[in-house]
Amino acid sequence: MSYLDNPSLIVPAAPRGKPGRITLVGAGPGAADMLTLRAIRYLGQADVVFYDRLVDPETLEYVRSDAERIFVGKEIGAHSWPQPRIDAAIVAAALSGKQVVRLKSGDPSIFGRATEEISAARAHGVEIEVVAGVTAASAAAASLCQPLTERGVTDRVVLATATCRPGEKMSNLQDLARPGTTLVFYMAMRQLKQLTGRLLALGVGPDQPVSIASHVSRHNARSLHTTLQNMSADCAAAGIDNPAVIIVSLPKADIDETHRGMAECSSGEALLEGI
Amino acid sequence: MSYLDNPSLIVPAAPRGKPGRITLVGAGPGAADMLTLRAIRYLGQADVVFYDRLVDPETLEYVRSDAERIFVGKEIGAHSWPQPRIDAAIVAAALSGKQVVRLKSGDPSIFGRATEEISAARAHGVEIEVVAGVTAASAAAASLCQPLTERGVTDRVVLATATCRPGEKMSNLQDLARPGTTLVFYMAMRQLKQLTGRLLALGVGPDQPVSIASHVSRHNARSLHTTLQNMSADCAAAGIDNPAVIIVSLPKADIDETHRGMAECSSGEALLEGI
Repeated sequence: MSYLDNPSLIVPAAPRGKPGRITLVGAGPGAADMLTLRAIRYLGQADVVFYDRLVDPETLEYVRSDAERIFVGKEIGAHSWPQPRIDAAIVAAALSGKQVVRLKSGDPSIFGRATEEISAARAHGVEIEVVAGVTAASAAAASLCQPLTERGVTDRVVLATATCRPGEKMSNLQDLARPGTTLVFYMAMRQLKQLTGRLLALGVGPDQPVSIASHVSRHNARSLHTTLQNMSADCAAAGIDNPAVIIVSLPKADIDETHRGMAECSSGEALLEGI
Repeated sequence: MSYLDNPSLIVPAAPRGKPGRITLVGAGPGAADMLTLRAIRYLGQADVVFYDRLVDPETLEYVRSDAERIFVGKEIGAHSWPQPRIDAAIVAAALSGKQVVRLKSGDPSIFGRATEEISAARAHGVEIEVVAGVTAASAAAASLCQPLTERGVTDRVVLATATCRPGEKMSNLQDLARPGTTLVFYMAMRQLKQLTGRLLALGVGPDQPVSIASHVSRHNARSLHTTLQNMSADCAAAGIDNPAVIIVSLPKADIDETHRGMAECSSGEALLEGI
């Protein structure tokens, strides 16, 4: 019985020539040409690749033809491996001496469940590394040609998710919906009405512009510019679903509590000329 | 006199075979292998590339040998082109019929001054596009093997900068330093004492773990794990300077106001199995 049949059977196998290891690789938004060169190098070296839904099939063309390709999830919550099964399987594969790539859409460090996989690897003494990818917020902003920060208007970006575990509470928006902030909600298409109601209750105007981008960089990419009050109906009418991000930019000028509690930069501070 | 000698002279030149255009390309954290395939394709098609400090020399090897390479900035505030000069130069080059790449470190949409360049292009009817890159927060988290979100612990990420224009006010941290949040400060190495004082004043503990990563992905990459109270002294002792990001993760469990104002997810909500 292999680790694929029963990944809970994690036993160190006889080591091969080189020890196994795990690399969590960010695939970016989905299009194969949004992979980094580093990601492609790891894909080409892998003995086994565990991959997500949301990754374009062409992405897997960089995997060696004799390598195993293991699909671990189709849709959110449906037909996907539970996280502990993924953790166990990647560790078991590495312990059997394989070079393992766990290919994740976006960036592994942002809503990517990387912590569980890193912890599982470390608990079994398996070397693990992370290759960053382009996160959905960046990809959506690029596709919309709508930067997330603007000098003098928005100087911070909040990446949040409106999706959470059954029975768990949604993140407190009250702290976040502040002037000078661009809010980016990941995977929020099933909480649109709830999100709208909460932002309205916090004083964000019904005519607040909202941009939505789904399936960014892929053949079925969609985008929509609407207002907070129309967001839910417009997305439903356009048939926009996850994976999608919602971008809400709250300019400094709109609310005069902007300067409350702010500390002044000394005049000698360096001028930021693009980071 | 060309647009390089005097970029304020923006006049449409006689069109060549194809109209000029501008692409803002994210180079990622600096290492050439953190470029995406799409970025490399645009670099190879460019007639002229305007590039930042912080981009590894090997990155420019993807530029055609007969293309112009124009260096627009060495250090923050020193020996760099003022933003309006960059805006004018890229527009002038595009209007003269060139395929222009503005290569920016990180992701153009996050603290990248992209808005000014997009506005300048649009004001002159020049087509502009953005290619997302790996932002510094993702690259730092990967290099530290320290994800920015952790299920049940941190469910939002704030990207902020501690650097601002002379005389301008620093962003209000009071809203940001909340349980369940990972704060990532870009380019903050010259405001460490100020940042420490403000976080302490907001109730973040002096022993709060802080991670710092500088020159991520490059040959001179450095990282440091310290505490809030020791951050400034430890960075000075280690000689860590910009470009660097500071990562401060504030777990939900640490402060019991976590649930204040939270809305409960309905039990039927989809289970998030990694985005």
